[in-house]
Amino acid sequence: MQLYIGNKNYSSWSLRPWLLLTHAGIPFEEVKLRLSVQPESAFKQTLARVSPVGKVPVLVEDDGYAIWDSLAICEYVAERFPERQLWPADVRLRARARSICAEMHNGFGALREHLPMNVELRMPEIGAKVLATQPDVARDLARLVQMWSELLDTHGGPFLFGRFSVADAYFAPICSRLHSYAVEVPPRIATYVEHILGLPAMQAWTEAALAEADFIDFDEPYRQSRG
Amino acid sequence: MQLYIGNKNYSSWSLRPWLLLTHAGIPFEEVKLRLSVQPESAFKQTLARVSPVGKVPVLVEDDGYAIWDSLAICEYVAERFPERQLWPADVRLRARARSICAEMHNGFGALREHLPMNVELRMPEIGAKVLATQPDVARDLARLVQMWSELLDTHGGPFLFGRFSVADAYFAPICSRLHSYAVEVPPRIATYVEHILGLPAMQAWTEAALAEADFIDFDEPYRQSRG
Repeated sequence: MQLYIGNKNYSSWSLRPWLLLTHAGIPFEEVKLRLSVQPESAFKQTLARVSPVGKVPVLVEDDGYAIWDSLAICEYVAERFPERQLWPADVRLRARARSICAEMHNGFGALREHLPMNVELRMPEIGAKVLATQPDVARDLARLVQMWSELLDTHGGPFLFGRFSVADAYFAPICSRLHSYAVEVPPRIATYVEHILGLPAMQAWTEAALAEADFIDFDEPYRQSRG
Repeated sequence: MQLYIGNKNYSSWSLRPWLLLTHAGIPFEEVKLRLSVQPESAFKQTLARVSPVGKVPVLVEDDGYAIWDSLAICEYVAERFPERQLWPADVRLRARARSICAEMHNGFGALREHLPMNVELRMPEIGAKVLATQPDVARDLARLVQMWSELLDTHGGPFLFGRFSVADAYFAPICSRLHSYAVEVPPRIATYVEHILGLPAMQAWTEAALAEADFIDFDEPYRQSRG
């Protein structure tokens, strides 16, 4: 199967299923497309051939059957590879994991807007400024800290539900953002962020992101260029 | 178990799991709260006691265990009541159903913003105006028509995947909107909309919505009052 993704430096939605598959050791072919919003771009033209939505990520089976949206892809991967135990085994914990993934899926809008994922970026001053001036971002961060603290306390870490699950893949782009913008968090949260960023799969993603040396202007609210 | 919901006239996210449970004949206690964004409101205060997110819907088990977000609630209900077959039985069709639910979960933003659910409303002139002046809404509608047409053609109706599934519950608020704003759609789509709106569970929701006689100003871009 193929996973269509965008630039590794920017595409937080792509990272989620990519990390899930890679960390779980599930073989797949990566198809990376340079992000674009132009209808005539290779990005839009290629995606139009595999799915009706024109967005990454898309998982395409060898016969062309497409599954789109990061959350639906993660669900499908968890079903196709049950031995990997990608959701918590307990039905209630699985529901809790799905609650927080769904919360991420259409929430944390302020944090996503003002602190976009940009793996190669290191801008502590922007992080400090955003948190000081954008109360909605501060609220999103407070909710994250509350959510993660409770789960890490309950399950003892090192992952949100003890062992690795879809939930960790789903919040990995947030870990990258907290790092890029040097957002101050309690020690327990910092340890979790370091743990996620240190995973071999996450390091492989990061190295590939750094090697891209690309600049996508609509994903760059804080830089005019990479210089 | 209890399902916390907002005003039936407005709360499209509440409708989704409510319709799923009701159509499937799964007993639950409904707890309806008057929508509010004020921190000191009964809405926010009550929700704060049952879940960390302060939004409806929330499903609360008898011992207080909470599952939030409409999508996670639907997944949980489908798992807890497997005999109801609330997702398509085939793994690929189940993935497709999840793709379109996830697409709905954080997509169709223009349609949601400009044509908000308002069960008691009948404003054909607003529908016509919005579609003529908002190309993003027209795009959302075109994608819906494409999605539904393909599924209804493939599976023969009357539901998106032949028999009722989470996907139908997930798009039911869209059917309500298409009706309220008298949006013109192809005959096959109109038949599907009528089928969903005619379900006994949907009619029960509609009757209760009409009986509310409430007015929530932040959900009313087009009216100053109910008069």
